[in-house]
Formats: sequence, C-alpha cells, structure tokens
Amino acid sequence: MTVLAPGLLGASIAQAVKDRGVARRTTVWARRPEARLECAERPWCDAIAETPEDAVGNADLVIVCSPVDTIFPLVKRIGAALSPGAIVTDVGSTKSLITRSCHAVMPDGVHFVGSHPMAGSEKSGMQFARAGLFDGRPCFITPLVKSDPRAVETVVRFWRDLAMEVATISPERHDEIVANISHLPHILACTLCAYLASKDPNWRNFVGAGFRDSTRVAAANPSLWKSIIEQNREEVVRAISEFEDHLQGIKAAAANEQPFEILNFLERAKVYRDRLRPTDGELQRPGTTGSASP
Amino acid sequence: MTVLAPGLLGASIAQAVKDRGVARRTTVWARRPEARLECAERPWCDAIAETPEDAVGNADLVIVCSPVDTIFPLVKRIGAALSPGAIVTDVGSTKSLITRSCHAVMPDGVHFVGSHPMAGSEKSGMQFARAGLFDGRPCFITPLVKSDPRAVETVVRFWRDLAMEVATISPERHDEIVANISHLPHILACTLCAYLASKDPNWRNFVGAGFRDSTRVAAANPSLWKSIIEQNREEVVRAISEFEDHLQGIKAAAANEQPFEILNFLERAKVYRDRLRPTDGELQRPGTTGSASP
Repeated sequence: MTVLAPGLLGASIAQAVKDRGVARRTTVWARRPEARLECAERPWCDAIAETPEDAVGNADLVIVCSPVDTIFPLVKRIGAALSPGAIVTDVGSTKSLITRSCHAVMPDGVHFVGSHPMAGSEKSGMQFARAGLFDGRPCFITPLVKSDPRAVETVVRFWRDLAMEVATISPERHDEIVANISHLPHILACTLCAYLASKDPNWRNFVGAGFRDSTRVAAANPSLWKSIIEQNREEVVRAISEFEDHLQGIKAAAANEQPFEILNFLERAKVYRDRLRPTDGELQRPGTTGSASP
Repeated sequence: MTVLAPGLLGASIAQAVKDRGVARRTTVWARRPEARLECAERPWCDAIAETPEDAVGNADLVIVCSPVDTIFPLVKRIGAALSPGAIVTDVGSTKSLITRSCHAVMPDGVHFVGSHPMAGSEKSGMQFARAGLFDGRPCFITPLVKSDPRAVETVVRFWRDLAMEVATISPERHDEIVANISHLPHILACTLCAYLASKDPNWRNFVGAGFRDSTRVAAANPSLWKSIIEQNREEVVRAISEFEDHLQGIKAAAANEQPFEILNFLERAKVYRDRLRPTDGELQRPGTTGSASP
C-alpha cells in the first residue's frame, strides 16, 4: 500500500492498516521534506519515497490523501508509474469532479475508484492521527458505471477492513448528500461565526457550550474547505438556497406570531435530531455538556 | 431561599446552594404533586410547600425557575405573600418582557431583579441536575434604572457565590445579545434538522460527529423554546435577517466562483471560533471528537 500526502486521514489510515495487518507494507510520500522525515520515524511507515512516482511503483493500492484540489494533479502524475493492476483511491470530500477526471487519466490496466471516509476532525495534521478514527463511521465509495468491478470490490473491502460502514453510490448522488449533511452545516457554522465577528467582540464572553458545539467545525482549515466549496459549488449553492427557504419559513412564523407553526417546526427538528445514532464521543459524555439555557 | 418550579436549573441551583452553604434553608414548590414528592427526598430540599404562596412566605430570596411564559404569572401570584424586603429573581432566557412586567407587579418593599444564568443543557428535568452546572459560566443580571440597588447587589452576590461570572446589563441589551449568540444558533440547528427531515431518511445514516455537534441543541424541549422565540420575537427576527444577509453573501461568492471571498469568509469564521474560551467539556476531550472529514 502507498499513502500519498498523509495528514490526519492518511496517517490514521496507515496506523489502522498497521494495527489490523491490512497491508504487508506501507510506503509513504509527503510533499514537504520535514513531513517525510517525520513519517520515517513512525511505526506505521515502512518506507519513504522522495517522489509520488517512486512511492507507487510497487503498490497494489494507492491512497491519495491530499486536499481535494490536488487529488487530480497527483493522480495524473502517478498514472504512468503504477504497476499493472494497481488500484488508486482517495479520501476527498467531493467526488464528481475527482472521480470522473481521475478515471479519465488512468492508463489501461490500472484503476481509479473514488472514496470518501466520513471521519476526521476540525483538526488537521498527522499529530492528531489515531487508528480508531474510522471505527463504525460511514464511508462512501463512488464507482462509475465503467469502473472495474474487481477494483471496486477491493476498495470496498479495504474500508471494511478498517471497520467502516461502506455505502456505494454514484459520485453525483454523493455530492448531493454531503452538500446537505456536511458542507451546508459547515457553511452555517462559519456564517454564524463570521456574522458574530461583525458584532460586539465582548459577546464572545457570553457564549455557552451550545454555541461552541454548533460552531466547532468552523475551526477547520479554511483552504481545505475553500476547495471543497469550489468543487461542489452547484450542490452547495442549491443546499443553501433550500435551507434559506426553510429559514424564511420559521422567520415568518416568528414575525407573524404563529405559535403552532413555531412549535411544529421545533418538534420536527427534535424528532429528527433524537433519531440520529449516537457517536463514540456522545456515548462517552452523556448529558455532561451544557448549552445556553432554555 | 425558595426555589419555585425546579427543573434542571432549579434543582442544580438548590444542590449548588446546599453544597456551598449559600442559604440556611431551601424551600421548594413544584407544580406537579409527584415532583413535590421527588423533591422531598433530595438532600438539597429542606421543606416542600403545597402552593407557591406558602413556599415564599419566609424567604429572603425566591428563584423562579419555570419556563419563560409562566414566570410572570407565578411572580404576580406570589407578590402579596412575600415577606418585607424579599427579593425575587428568575432564570429565564428572555428578559425584557419578564423584567418589566414582574417589576411592575411587585408590591412595595419587595423587589424583582431579573437573572439569566447561561447554563443548562438540551436535556431538561431534575434528573440531569448537578451542582457544578454553573461553575465559571456567564450569568446576566438585568436591573432596571428604578431597581433597588441593594436587591441588585444581593442577586449579583448570589450568582457569584455559585461561581458564575456575572454581567449586569439592561434587559433590552440582554435580549439582543442572546438573540444572536443563543436563540439564532438554536433556530439554525433546528432549521437544519427540519430541513433534512424533508430529505431522504437514509441520509441520517451518513451524518458525522460534526453534524451531531452542530445540531445538538435541536434536541431541546420544543415548548420551552417556542416561548423563548415568542418572548424575544423582535430581536430573534432581526438576528435571523442579519444572518440571512451573511448567508446570501457566501452563497453569492460560491455561485460566482470568487475564491478570495470564500477563503476570506472561512478565515474570519476560524479566527472567531479559535478565540472562544474553551468550556469544561472541550477541555476534557481534546481532539477526540471527529467531524465529517474535510
């Protein structure tokens, strides 16, 4: 296996792969020489390569972990260096552009299958890596109709070996879903922060745990998210527009003093939220985090 | 001290008061007979009263912990039963209506001073009470110009004795601040949930810890929040409108492919979020909660 551009996700993958014996040998390439030196000292790294081409020469499976805007350039660059039958996948949060462009530049006999493991954090960087990052979390695999079925099966098996719950869907459907459940919430959290940044700075001192939780994702890396928004522009804009309609609705109910509409809205929201599966983090801290008091 | 209508906040107050020896004796009244029986068994409850009037007769300080829409009726009801010099406060999330109406119905020689301890949870009910709920959290006190200075001082001291960080401001300013930092985020979380409830139910299976954190407050009690929105209608509607302008801005930047605007927006959001003080909960779990991967 080869991991290209290990950050939080790539390093966590390599660590989980080592812990679970999923690959015989893991080769790593990182863009910055310091990062390569750092990787060389980690137990999950069996070999370091100076270039992406060198890194992939012997790999059966290559996992590209760079930001979404650099996945295609990297995949294009390594194409000719891949050994016959090699499979390339990625961990990018957007899939339509990446899957179709990467598939198109693959030489004969090697395969690209897009992946999006829904794990991570607002923190980025290898120092936050942990093997358990993927346990029980969802992972999208986004094959094309023309994708090689055995390559798809290998990628599915790989993420299942890391204890992920795999869902196979089209790249377009993926981008619609994540625009709504991930990119829209991210933009809302950022908009809330950017909005409050325009207000009295002292208000910062009064925010409660509810606000902190609501906006935690806004601490994520801005340039990573800029690329995600750009790559999923159409779906993101559509999701924002539909959200705006709903927000308009509740604003009108409040402005027009419609108690039943307000209550109905709050009840629908609670039913939806209560039905979400708890995550590890929430199971560990039942009822201990506070919010602004109702 | 008397606590009227103990739920999460009232029971936590009584518990903290007992632990810290803030009051000699705590009398409690709850609307439901079962709740009164439950209170009677708790170590923080020295006496149970059958009516609010009976509960307040000997109290120096009365804390009304009922939902915001029932605070004024309760305060009005106990007015004539208060002993001379008694001070009444509350824990409601809205302050303009409550503070002005309660002040107006206070008989001579007794005082109402509004409070809003910014502690709590999306959970409600005595069973989630804990004495540490208030430690280091902000508490607003909202006196009027005509409020008795000694009564204000007593209420400030009370919340400080519970380890809260007290800020004294006008009720109108309070309502503006909480509309922005608490009610708006709550409505956004609920709108996100209500919006996604209108989409494919299977998407629920793909949401990550980021989404869960973003929407945690949406699990709160709908009828409590209906009253909060109603009581703070003008400020809430204004906050939503201003937020909509900001959301429009980022939507336009995305739609028009303006990379610098998008990046600038995400950076402003991150700067704001990074500068918030960490809460207990976050200090306990550094970097362990994940979000949808970028």
